[in-house]
Amino acid sequence: MKISIERAVLLKAVSQAQSVVERRNTIPILANVLIEAEGDTVQFRATDLDIEVVDKANAMVERAGATTVAATTLHEIVRKLPDGALVTLTDDSAAGRLTVEAGRSNFSLATLPREDFPVMASSEYSSNFSAPAPALRRLFDKAKFAISTEETRYYLNGVYLHVSDGEDGKVLRAVATDGHRLARIDTDLPASASDMPGVIVPRKTVGELRKLLDDDDMEIAVSVSETKVRFATPSITLTSKVIDGTFPDYTRVIPQGNTRKLEVDASEFAKAVDRVATVSSERSRAVKLQLDEDRLVLSVNSPDSGAAEEELVVAYNDERLEIGFNAKYLLEIASQVDRENAVFMFNSAGDPTLMREGGDTSAVYVVMPMRV
Amino acid sequence: MKISIERAVLLKAVSQAQSVVERRNTIPILANVLIEAEGDTVQFRATDLDIEVVDKANAMVERAGATTVAATTLHEIVRKLPDGALVTLTDDSAAGRLTVEAGRSNFSLATLPREDFPVMASSEYSSNFSAPAPALRRLFDKAKFAISTEETRYYLNGVYLHVSDGEDGKVLRAVATDGHRLARIDTDLPASASDMPGVIVPRKTVGELRKLLDDDDMEIAVSVSETKVRFATPSITLTSKVIDGTFPDYTRVIPQGNTRKLEVDASEFAKAVDRVATVSSERSRAVKLQLDEDRLVLSVNSPDSGAAEEELVVAYNDERLEIGFNAKYLLEIASQVDRENAVFMFNSAGDPTLMREGGDTSAVYVVMPMRV
Repeated sequence: MKISIERAVLLKAVSQAQSVVERRNTIPILANVLIEAEGDTVQFRATDLDIEVVDKANAMVERAGATTVAATTLHEIVRKLPDGALVTLTDDSAAGRLTVEAGRSNFSLATLPREDFPVMASSEYSSNFSAPAPALRRLFDKAKFAISTEETRYYLNGVYLHVSDGEDGKVLRAVATDGHRLARIDTDLPASASDMPGVIVPRKTVGELRKLLDDDDMEIAVSVSETKVRFATPSITLTSKVIDGTFPDYTRVIPQGNTRKLEVDASEFAKAVDRVATVSSERSRAVKLQLDEDRLVLSVNSPDSGAAEEELVVAYNDERLEIGFNAKYLLEIASQVDRENAVFMFNSAGDPTLMREGGDTSAVYVVMPMRV
Repeated sequence: MKISIERAVLLKAVSQAQSVVERRNTIPILANVLIEAEGDTVQFRATDLDIEVVDKANAMVERAGATTVAATTLHEIVRKLPDGALVTLTDDSAAGRLTVEAGRSNFSLATLPREDFPVMASSEYSSNFSAPAPALRRLFDKAKFAISTEETRYYLNGVYLHVSDGEDGKVLRAVATDGHRLARIDTDLPASASDMPGVIVPRKTVGELRKLLDDDDMEIAVSVSETKVRFATPSITLTSKVIDGTFPDYTRVIPQGNTRKLEVDASEFAKAVDRVATVSSERSRAVKLQLDEDRLVLSVNSPDSGAAEEELVVAYNDERLEIGFNAKYLLEIASQVDRENAVFMFNSAGDPTLMREGGDTSAVYVVMPMRV
């Protein structure tokens, strides 16, 4: 294999690939990226056995072929090369070396045979559709904070992507929860997605996927089977196993009968919560909300460090209510609100509380109270 | 005590003070900042028993007095208050509480009696002079990378500030070394500094001092005794114990007879070293320099990950030389050069190498070679 490629193009392709590679590997080949050159294209493939990313780039291919080389080392080298450099990669399979040349720099890297590289088995996908990048971005960005990190409840370690019933018909829905809070985000159901099986997209996949979704005009090709999910742009294909488990019935968690409505400027609310939480103890982080006629008092009482109280002018017309929450959870859901006021729907101090943006029900959050 | 103070002024004063406070304290009072209000001034004092910083600010003092309160909590609160807020601090010594009020926010923090706060004993300083902030900044900025972190050689855990003989008479000199590399930086001797005793300024003090030196027009009042050093601006006073030890005779380490001269663009050199070091092993980081008529070849050979080589056009007119260095050390000294070419003076592959900026001898670096 011998190819020449512009440094910026190479850097982009290698960056995306190497980020999938786990830093600590017991299997040496998993630290490598598979480089395959043919025609006028070079592919960079990396995997951690659960996720595989393939990045295609244009290159001058002088001699077709393939090899594998340490992903992070190659990435570091390309990153440090001067901008605008033309990089030549030459594989000497007899010597087991890949030469990287650019200007007066010359690197020789140890390779491992391409045959040893574990290429993910191709799957039959039962559902194929395309979705706009901004729609997918919103689904995952607004849901991912609620993903559980508890490994014992592995079926909560991802975002549950599935087809569901929204207020105006079928929607594509992302749900994540850790038992303390829940996010339920809807977007228009893409054409021919209606028979998509529900899948739990793992946390790491959500992170890697995010890098494909930055371009507002991009349409993402999505393929789903019972065991795998694939997201693709013209240059990048991300394939991931899905979590083999059953996502719990989240609908029972979302309160339907909460009638006490609080409307508050989300940014003012978040800042005030952040301020009063300064004195909360590291462990509990409990903030008390006292609601009264158009008045919200946030307070924290910590035996060690002191007390804090802040008053906000809000819209609230129901009876007096005192309810406690984890400050971190309140901050996280308040920071999801980007257009309108935050609307909280309470029932009692012991019941889950619902939060949404204004009248919009396409993004709904649930947070469990705590005793204060 | 009751004072009102503008949030930005309070934030600046508390920031400087709280950064001296150690995060983990077994003595509770050391986590606190001492607030003393009198006249139209409030002082914030913090200490770790080795360094004391006192920050003065203007305030409306309604009731003079003093108290102590958790430095990081106070800092966090003030940081989160809205810009432009007027902050009122009220001490209730009977209740052992300090109230912090701003707008609709209200905090009550636990206090400890001012009497418990360890104020650093005042000293007789044998030398008092003033020096421009940029001159001190240069001394410490260019020397500090060479400070040793080895606790057994505690007398190297700081910058040795002393009066010495420069090429054109007496200079104020900063020296730091860890045994592998050494930095020797000179500046004009300030008036009446000639009788200053040499002192080893500890690493943490160097870091804290740096925050006083940002203003190009500031004159810093410096006071030195055998045991303490003090740096002061009109609003901030930083007092520090100096390291109780003897700095080794560094002059013997600085090679005098090195005649083989290499001149190289410092930035190009640093980038090339950084690139070839990518393939070096985590442990040794050895880079080989091969010098020949106006040509420098940098190379790294690592059994695990591969090899790298880069050629630079340089000015060199001596006989062929091969010498190895730790890449990290080369990068660090090359990054000290900001105006001119880096000039290296070599002797043999086993001897220390000297580096300076062009013909300027007011900043000189020594680096030990390593076998490659």
